[in-house]
Amino acid sequence: MDEVNFAVLGCGGIGRRTLEVSTDKEHLTPVAACDRNGAAVDHDGLDVDELLAATEGNIASDGGTAAASGSGTDSSGVKQTGENAGVAASVQADPTEEPIEEVIEASDDIDAVLIALPNFEHDFIPRVADRFAEAGYEGVLVDVLKRSRVIDMLDDRTDEFEAEGITFVCGAGATPGFLTGAAAIAAQSFVEVHEVEIWWGVGLKSGYEDNRGTVREDIAHLPEYDIDDAREMSDAEIEAVIDEYDGVIEFEDMEHADDVLLERAGICDAEDVTVGGILDVTSDEKPTTTTVRVTGTTFDGETGTNSFELDDATSMAANVNGPALGYLKAGVRRNRAGEYGVFGPADLMPGF
Amino acid sequence: MDEVNFAVLGCGGIGRRTLEVSTDKEHLTPVAACDRNGAAVDHDGLDVDELLAATEGNIASDGGTAAASGSGTDSSGVKQTGENAGVAASVQADPTEEPIEEVIEASDDIDAVLIALPNFEHDFIPRVADRFAEAGYEGVLVDVLKRSRVIDMLDDRTDEFEAEGITFVCGAGATPGFLTGAAAIAAQSFVEVHEVEIWWGVGLKSGYEDNRGTVREDIAHLPEYDIDDAREMSDAEIEAVIDEYDGVIEFEDMEHADDVLLERAGICDAEDVTVGGILDVTSDEKPTTTTVRVTGTTFDGETGTNSFELDDATSMAANVNGPALGYLKAGVRRNRAGEYGVFGPADLMPGF
Repeated sequence: MDEVNFAVLGCGGIGRRTLEVSTDKEHLTPVAACDRNGAAVDHDGLDVDELLAATEGNIASDGGTAAASGSGTDSSGVKQTGENAGVAASVQADPTEEPIEEVIEASDDIDAVLIALPNFEHDFIPRVADRFAEAGYEGVLVDVLKRSRVIDMLDDRTDEFEAEGITFVCGAGATPGFLTGAAAIAAQSFVEVHEVEIWWGVGLKSGYEDNRGTVREDIAHLPEYDIDDAREMSDAEIEAVIDEYDGVIEFEDMEHADDVLLERAGICDAEDVTVGGILDVTSDEKPTTTTVRVTGTTFDGETGTNSFELDDATSMAANVNGPALGYLKAGVRRNRAGEYGVFGPADLMPGF
Repeated sequence: MDEVNFAVLGCGGIGRRTLEVSTDKEHLTPVAACDRNGAAVDHDGLDVDELLAATEGNIASDGGTAAASGSGTDSSGVKQTGENAGVAASVQADPTEEPIEEVIEASDDIDAVLIALPNFEHDFIPRVADRFAEAGYEGVLVDVLKRSRVIDMLDDRTDEFEAEGITFVCGAGATPGFLTGAAAIAAQSFVEVHEVEIWWGVGLKSGYEDNRGTVREDIAHLPEYDIDDAREMSDAEIEAVIDEYDGVIEFEDMEHADDVLLERAGICDAEDVTVGGILDVTSDEKPTTTTVRVTGTTFDGETGTNSFELDDATSMAANVNGPALGYLKAGVRRNRAGEYGVFGPADLMPGF
């Protein structure tokens, strides 16, 4: 595979950790990163260590999409707002009012763009894609979105992506990405799949500060809240919800895009997919083991359940960012072969 | 994905079961099948039920590559040799001295060819590929080979395949194929993989007659035998070996291509892959659960083991043929996008 360079939109937990993981991957060079405060572009490759050191602890709870709610410095002493907040704290970055525009302007030389922004408005990521398409970007866009309904919005843009030469890979994080990929493999014993059960555990004590945007988005999956509530809640209100659950929140029947992504890949019907899990912000230990269970019938009439299990020692960050970069590389391969449009992670698996 | 039609070379257990499984798969049409006695070609699609009914129990222990050693009929009363033995017993087939040639002659209209022949001479499958290449075939060749050393022989032909427009997918059965694909997924939590342990269980009592070629090939993996011994042994000698082990044979450190295929896909070093398993011809129950264990270190310094487990109810046949057809479809997709050369199953996964 040829060399791949990429940009990251958003420097919250996912964006920054993706930059970090990329330094361990072959053939991948990060050349741009931005958040709402600034943008860093270097076509020879960013200095990831410097960028991470400058921005550690420098991240807003909303991931940078909602309005600034504070005005001072956070507990680490790094400014979250105002001049040189966020990415702009890096010597490689410049403050800007139009960070995404800065990346778009540099995108002629960028193979892939990872959109690591929380998607509080459902059409936020699709609208970011529109901006790249309108600017004539020919390359790969990858997101790590979770919610099923966004896929339809992306599908509506298929013609536009195909016309421009964009390969959009959606839902490429841990779940849907990693775990639907595993489900696509696990389904291969069967000629008919009856049920896919995805169950995750996340222990997020020390990583909590770094992933507040993700926690906020998770709260929107609770039956009492929706995504608008979650976006508009203050940090204190989010904390109050977490306290109400004593820091351990169990989710059932989540609206996760695993269902529609497995259906579009021909693995099973969306309604046969269930997603749930437990988030524990009081411990770094996982409260439950992340598993994928695929139940089906073989061609010779036997029913069985194949399973995939992640070691409890593997963090959420490890399980989001490795797969995201893998799917990004897969997207670049497809793009270079002239395959454009919208792909789910399981679409990038062999055409099982 | 567009429609895919395919041919099967060899109508032993793997070939016949692949035809059967394909009837449960969408967009796949079998249009040719052959063994050493005959060839059936129908570009509108073979009648799989008729072909299977006509050839059931009609299979030589050597899978059709060695010289005929018997002259009569087997216990099912279907002739294994002479006129109308094997595939020629089907009304759709004609007896021929040159079955592979018959398929090659029809191959202009064939998207993919599954080579389901035992590979007793190490260069047998590579030589079959040569014949297709020399005839100007542009399409996909898939094998389900197991041995590492064959991969090098195929790699030596990369230039030829690329010049002709051939996409060769090697080792696409249960192992290496299915289980290396699972290993490639399981590795995604890690930035460094230390060990991949592949362990299989096969219970092959009622399926034994149908898979004698596979059993014979397995015996070549025992330390006391090599592949030449296994090819030249009579059925009675094979039985004697099986009896010596009371029908339950454990294999360790097998020369399985899982190692080189995972290395070429960038997952780990070949020397970090171990393959073993237990074959039980006295029972249909699996003597041990088939598992893949991938141990590595995450970007944040944790060491863990992700695992993939196949339900004991899934037969060897189910786990060979579903993945083989999946990788075949993936190969066709790559071929249509203009990607030629030699691919392992894990190469067809997202470029993790």
